[in-house]
Amino acid sequence: MRLGRVVGSLWSSVKTEQLEGVRLLLIQPIDEAGANAGRTLIAADAIGAGAGDTIYWCRGKEASFAMLPAAVGADAAVVGIVDSITLASAG
Amino acid sequence: MRLGRVVGSLWSSVKTEQLEGVRLLLIQPIDEAGANAGRTLIAADAIGAGAGDTIYWCRGKEASFAMLPAAVGADAAVVGIVDSITLASAG
Amino acid sequence: MRLGRVVGSLWSSVKTEQLEGVRLLLIQPIDEAGANAGRTLIAADAIGAGAGDTIYWCRGKEASFAMLPAAVGADAAVVGIVDSITLASAG
Amino acid sequence: MRLGRVVGSLWSSVKTEQLEGVRLLLIQPIDEAGANAGRTLIAADAIGAGAGDTIYWCRGKEASFAMLPAAVGADAAVVGIVDSITLASAG
Amino acid sequence: MRLGRVVGSLWSSVKTEQLEGVRLLLIQPIDEAGANAGRTLIAADAIGAGAGDTIYWCRGKEASFAMLPAAVGADAAVVGIVDSITLASAG
Repeated sequence: MRLGRVVGSLWSSVKTEQLEGVRLLLIQPIDEAGANAGRTLIAADAIGAGAGDTIYWCRGKEASFAMLPAAVGADAAVVGIVDSITLASAG
Repeated sequence: MRLGRVVGSLWSSVKTEQLEGVRLLLIQPIDEAGANAGRTLIAADAIGAGAGDTIYWCRGKEASFAMLPAAVGADAAVVGIVDSITLASAG
Repeated sequence: MRLGRVVGSLWSSVKTEQLEGVRLLLIQPIDEAGANAGRTLIAADAIGAGAGDTIYWCRGKEASFAMLPAAVGADAAVVGIVDSITLASAG
Repeated sequence: MRLGRVVGSLWSSVKTEQLEGVRLLLIQPIDEAGANAGRTLIAADAIGAGAGDTIYWCRGKEASFAMLPAAVGADAAVVGIVDSITLASAG
Repeated sequence: MRLGRVVGSLWSSVKTEQLEGVRLLLIQPIDEAGANAGRTLIAADAIGAGAGDTIYWCRGKEASFAMLPAAVGADAAVVGIVDSITLASAG
């Protein structure tokens, strides 16, 4: 998974049947210090994330799997909201 | 998924059986401001997208899944047309 | 899928059983103008492509799927030869 | 798989059901000399890795598979701790 | 698949059950001229490759599949040794 921030949402009327009723979020990948880290992407919302939330998202078949029982045909999903990150004194 | 723009289509007579009847589009990945963001790719059209449309596309097995009931052996598919993107005041 | 050009072939006697009888091609990814776009890769030939052909190739499980009925344990396959690309006047 | 170092852990109360009880680690990818090599990521802990450990992690469906019998809906998992790396005199 | 060179091996006592008995190799991706092309990775050995061998490796579920009958929970596997590469006079 990667860290990200919810920076928007996407509206779409023409889409595959599998995406009906799925909330699509615009995600800005970030690093653990909160800095932008890569290009924005569109992810299905599996947990009810809101604008500005620091989240982590998942790619691939596992993203679709996160939306069970409905398989959604999405390749990215927001699977959790970050409460905190504990940094180790690196070994 | 990623945002993109339909910038062309691909014609091909020699191809795998699974791709028979599948419309193949040339997609330019873009960011939420509409600027180009990465290399063009070829995606199967799952929704009837047209030239110039702002779309979002999906990768991997989920792309193939988007073309059900016919499994197509494609690793990318256009799964929706973008109506609008709402940007949050980032948190 | 991505566009590419067949730039060579690979010979190999020691390989997994699943790759027995599979033709392996060296592919140079290209963009729609024919310019090189990224590193060469090895792809299974699913269609009988020849040296110099402009092709498109597929990644992941879908690549293996393209070789049915034999599942080949390959992560990339040439799935079609390009006849022509029609560029839209971008929207 | 890639080499990495455990540099932290992530706490999260809102997440998919599949991630309940799964320990999430912040991983810094490294090369064989121990230098940072790419962006940090969040991986499920399949083996009980601790802060500062040099580990290797796995992506994709195989990452989820590493957590059996519970399928976790994660796209990355720490699957082993490195004891040592033997470098060959490259051919 | 991608070309690579076996540059080392990895020893690990703490790992997932699925990786028990699996030989793990350190691979340096190379191009067809033998030059380094990207970061090293850890791949399961499906064919008995040795130090210095020029090999090709496979990613994703297909890598795991290459290790049948034992599914290994690895996301990369060495699937063949390169005898020779024939370069075409590019079209």
